Amino acid sequence: MERNEALALVEPHLKAVRFEHTKRVVDTAINLAEQYGVDKQKAELAAVFHDYAKYRDKQEMQRWIEQEALPKDLLDFHHELWHGPVGALLVKREIGITDQSVLDAIRWHTTGRANMTPLEKVVFLADYIEPGRDFPGVGEVRDQAKQDLDRACWMALKNTITFLMSKDATIYPDTFHAYNDLLRVVE
Amino acid sequence: MERNEALALVEPHLKAVRFEHTKRVVDTAINLAEQYGVDKQKAELAAVFHDYAKYRDKQEMQRWIEQEALPKDLLDFHHELWHGPVGALLVKREIGITDQSVLDAIRWHTTGRANMTPLEKVVFLADYIEPGRDFPGVGEVRDQAKQDLDRACWMALKNTITFLMSKDATIYPDTFHAYNDLLRVVE
Repeated sequence: MERNEALALVEPHLKAVRFEHTKRVVDTAINLAEQYGVDKQKAELAAVFHDYAKYRDKQEMQRWIEQEALPKDLLDFHHELWHGPVGALLVKREIGITDQSVLDAIRWHTTGRANMTPLEKVVFLADYIEPGRDFPGVGEVRDQAKQDLDRACWMALKNTITFLMSKDATIYPDTFHAYNDLLRVVE
Repeated sequence: MERNEALALVEPHLKAVRFEHTKRVVDTAINLAEQYGVDKQKAELAAVFHDYAKYRDKQEMQRWIEQEALPKDLLDFHHELWHGPVGALLVKREIGITDQSVLDAIRWHTTGRANMTPLEKVVFLADYIEPGRDFPGVGEVRDQAKQDLDRACWMALKNTITFLMSKDATIYPDTFHAYNDLLRVVE
């Protein structure tokens, strides 16, 4: 699927600011893919559709999680985490993308998971460091992304967990599994 | 089993400073048990033996984990975490304690886990706040332990995770699960 065609398919599902974010994630993901020898077309496709389900109604997402083969424990965690797994499902059903590696990159782009593929890391990291992002620590992760994909992803996960804990928020298990897993890779 | 008899059984397995720690954990656990309506004899017994395997040879603990029905992922984490699960196993085999609730309190005293029983919480917390402990945040947890067993345990877990992350250390999954679980109870 050509980039503009894909963007035209996702645009109606996003608010304008989110669509701008998506385009920056696409550019960032392509750059990271080139840098780290990841399939650029797959990175582009996953990035375009990574937030496809971002604005789905919460009750609709809950129904998909309950009815489909998605982890039920998602329902015990913040609904902000649901749009990745639900998005992967809907991008397959509604857009017809069947490449599992692309769907997985969409699925795990928010939480991460243990044993992420390079494609999953690229999309996860692009979403975290795209140039519109501005939160504590993003500069260090952006710098690290030029040097070491694994370490940059691990820093992003560590920042995320630290931030959530400072807010007394729950942490989705796949996020700390990803943290533990990548720590063993980078240390 | 009478307290002095139990202490006499554990003493040969511990260094002197660790035996003193154990006696303080026993006193603290009994106080917490009384305060929160937990069986004092069970709390006493679990506290006496909580560090039974603390000084077992690392290779011996590794063999127990490999050979017995213990989680194999322990081997991917710091060996400091092994003495709880291995201790529960050895206290059953060598001391003859068969009360599963006591063995579980020994087993989870370092990592915690989701859905801890009140007895498990008492031993976990007593180990964390006994009066010989002196590390950042212990005073707040000690104060909280007078008010709310769940919140005190959750604060201890949060402190532990924060400390480990500040050292770029891995976090055993059950510790995160305990943090998430108790957060839902206290918030």
